[in-house]
Amino acid sequence: MTILIKNATVLDLKKFAAVENDILIEGNKISKIGVDIEVNEKENLKIIDGSNKVALPGLINGHTHVAMTLFRGAADDLPLMDWLNNVIWPSESRLTGEDVYWGSLLGIVEMIKSGTTTFCDMYFFMDEVAHAVEQSGIRAILSRGMVAIDPANGEKGLKESVDFIEKWQGKANGRITTALAPHAPYTCPPEFLKDVIWEAKRLNVPINIHISETLDEISIIKERYGTTPVRHLESLGLFEVKTIGAHLVYVDDEEIQILKRYQVGAIHNPQSNMKLASGIAPVAKMLEAGVLVGLGTDGAASNNDLDMIEELRTASYLQKVSSMNPEALNAKTSIAMATSLGARALGLTEVGLLQEGYKADIILLNTNETNFYPRHNIFNLIAYSAKGADVDTVIVDGEVIMEKRQLTRLDEEKIKFEANKRGLKLVAG
Amino acid sequence: MTILIKNATVLDLKKFAAVENDILIEGNKISKIGVDIEVNEKENLKIIDGSNKVALPGLINGHTHVAMTLFRGAADDLPLMDWLNNVIWPSESRLTGEDVYWGSLLGIVEMIKSGTTTFCDMYFFMDEVAHAVEQSGIRAILSRGMVAIDPANGEKGLKESVDFIEKWQGKANGRITTALAPHAPYTCPPEFLKDVIWEAKRLNVPINIHISETLDEISIIKERYGTTPVRHLESLGLFEVKTIGAHLVYVDDEEIQILKRYQVGAIHNPQSNMKLASGIAPVAKMLEAGVLVGLGTDGAASNNDLDMIEELRTASYLQKVSSMNPEALNAKTSIAMATSLGARALGLTEVGLLQEGYKADIILLNTNETNFYPRHNIFNLIAYSAKGADVDTVIVDGEVIMEKRQLTRLDEEKIKFEANKRGLKLVAG
Ligand SMILES: [Zn+2]
Ligand SMILES: [Zn+2]
Repeated sequence: MTILIKNATVLDLKKFAAVENDILIEGNKISKIGVDIEVNEKENLKIIDGSNKVALPGLINGHTHVAMTLFRGAADDLPLMDWLNNVIWPSESRLTGEDVYWGSLLGIVEMIKSGTTTFCDMYFFMDEVAHAVEQSGIRAILSRGMVAIDPANGEKGLKESVDFIEKWQGKANGRITTALAPHAPYTCPPEFLKDVIWEAKRLNVPINIHISETLDEISIIKERYGTTPVRHLESLGLFEVKTIGAHLVYVDDEEIQILKRYQVGAIHNPQSNMKLASGIAPVAKMLEAGVLVGLGTDGAASNNDLDMIEELRTASYLQKVSSMNPEALNAKTSIAMATSLGARALGLTEVGLLQEGYKADIILLNTNETNFYPRHNIFNLIAYSAKGADVDTVIVDGEVIMEKRQLTRLDEEKIKFEANKRGLKLVAG
Repeated sequence: MTILIKNATVLDLKKFAAVENDILIEGNKISKIGVDIEVNEKENLKIIDGSNKVALPGLINGHTHVAMTLFRGAADDLPLMDWLNNVIWPSESRLTGEDVYWGSLLGIVEMIKSGTTTFCDMYFFMDEVAHAVEQSGIRAILSRGMVAIDPANGEKGLKESVDFIEKWQGKANGRITTALAPHAPYTCPPEFLKDVIWEAKRLNVPINIHISETLDEISIIKERYGTTPVRHLESLGLFEVKTIGAHLVYVDDEEIQILKRYQVGAIHNPQSNMKLASGIAPVAKMLEAGVLVGLGTDGAASNNDLDMIEELRTASYLQKVSSMNPEALNAKTSIAMATSLGARALGLTEVGLLQEGYKADIILLNTNETNFYPRHNIFNLIAYSAKGADVDTVIVDGEVIMEKRQLTRLDEEKIKFEANKRGLKLVAG
């Protein structure tokens, strides 16, 4: 299939320019961007009218637990331990692979409909998540979360992770890649983390891990190892493997330098950090230091949606008020965190920009709603007043997976029905 | 016209319950809420299918400058004084009444489409804003902003305000009410404020004023009057008039008691306060003390949208993280701030609740999108994952002004065209 998008406002996130252009997609790649592109071969050519639309790279959700959509809104406004002990953990203990499959699909529908084309996931029953990704057409980095407080659990998790990686790495035409996911430094002892590092090097996959999310974590690590989470992980050699670190709310200047030196992807999850009252990550500072900062929603049990446009706006506003500086985390940088910079944070090289030779992961935003008027500045409009519902068309790996807000591959009604039934049952117990 | 909404999930914001019910609207009032309501008179009866929809009171935007949609995104990420001096003030100096009319309509369309049925406005050319309100079917408290640094300006503003109030108070079947709007304690000297208080008492209208928005304001008031803005206004007797105070970012415990004692409506504008890096208002504390706290978007030049659902979510998340307490400003209270409590903050007595005898200001949210699944808890879903675009139907004063996202009274395309043209021209100069 060849796709030609005609006359869209195309965002160049390298030059931060917006130019009316055509985009030609051949196979799974962007083959040309320019004015009045001619295509000789008319067979198998799909033309998309890009007028009144903005084309931007698909959004990259750098940290989530997608099947947790099953628990969205089941219990909110609770202290963290009440919420985990009384709602989330009992519900998760009842999870089946099928539940995770339908919960993942619910989250994937939500992500596609709000413009996300790549997500980085950590959860259980990852085969089912992978099936959901394969079917849906979206791109993902998938990892089985490993908790090793009980060493037997750790061993089981690592074995399952390795099996998962061997089975799925590069599948679905490369849309699925994998990672090893030790849950966090406070739930994975050093010996276990060393095994994980060894396997990550052997399998050549990144490590996906929560780091420095809460003050409690900081206390625990201090008590156990006499240092901070980032220093602790560095001393174990973890950052020698490409690392995707979620949260990093509590990091000092020296730790920021460590993150930069190792090119750790720091995934900021502002709404989750606000809602769970975890704290405010020093994102503006990290960006200034040259850390690769991406953006994530975290799971829908703590967000409560997977809307990356809302997330990038919140990221910007939160940095401005927390640093008392209205210039902090400007519109362009917020958009980059959700696209080009987010891709680099995850170690992805061919997505995150609209550029010839890159993978054709493209979204078209409809600019018809009042929130896109007047047309003073398209970057400001996207960062500060666009909505997830403005996403009109979603292309991943050269395939249209949503057009005029209709999904082409998935049965949305069936997914909502199944996920609803299962979510209610899991929480009721 | 009689309207019967059948089988909607009706939110009771007094008991915080959600019950499937019918709602009967006769004239401009809710005449009955109950199961299987029968209507004998079938003529002039409109039936609305409420299944898969949630009915809630129309949202109340307690503070905005609606015509500033004209400047949305014209310049962001700037220090406040650069932004005002180089963009907003020069553009505003070129404003005509016609510009304000079209800019107001643009903002009103946006508000209706995201579920707002009442807004409280402060701006110039208020006759034009009133015409836009009258035409659109929305409800509003309108006030002409008065700056009195130059006493002649203050005098002119007060005269125009009085004329405006005499002309418009109670018009459009009571949808339009009015207020006197001295801009802020640092732009209005005490003598002028005394004149305003006197006129407000004579005309029996509330006062709408910005209070304690920034640290700069706190310094100025301290330097000029040796006290804080709230204490200063109290000493002038301003709060003896029903007061709608926007922002109140910087208030101490004693000032919170003053606000409570006088039943000042404290309108919180979290996104504006974040984006302009003004600070974080102690909303959880104010609520606990019993202050009437409402919610506003502020103008679209500093927000950058007029979406009250996004605003109530941000309010909740911001209080949680700033107080490091995940229980702060829970889902129900956030919804109340945008409805029942917001109405009380503005001094409105017959809106903000779905209750027999109240004005029929009702919105129906479509619950079809994934962000409304699973159906664990409707309050959590509305507060933490609903979107402005989920608003399906809007009824104000007993009249359907939007149905299935189509406006019944306004020509949306024409409004976008005119507002775009004028906004671009005003900023270009
Ligand atoms: Zn997480
Ligand atoms: Zn204001």
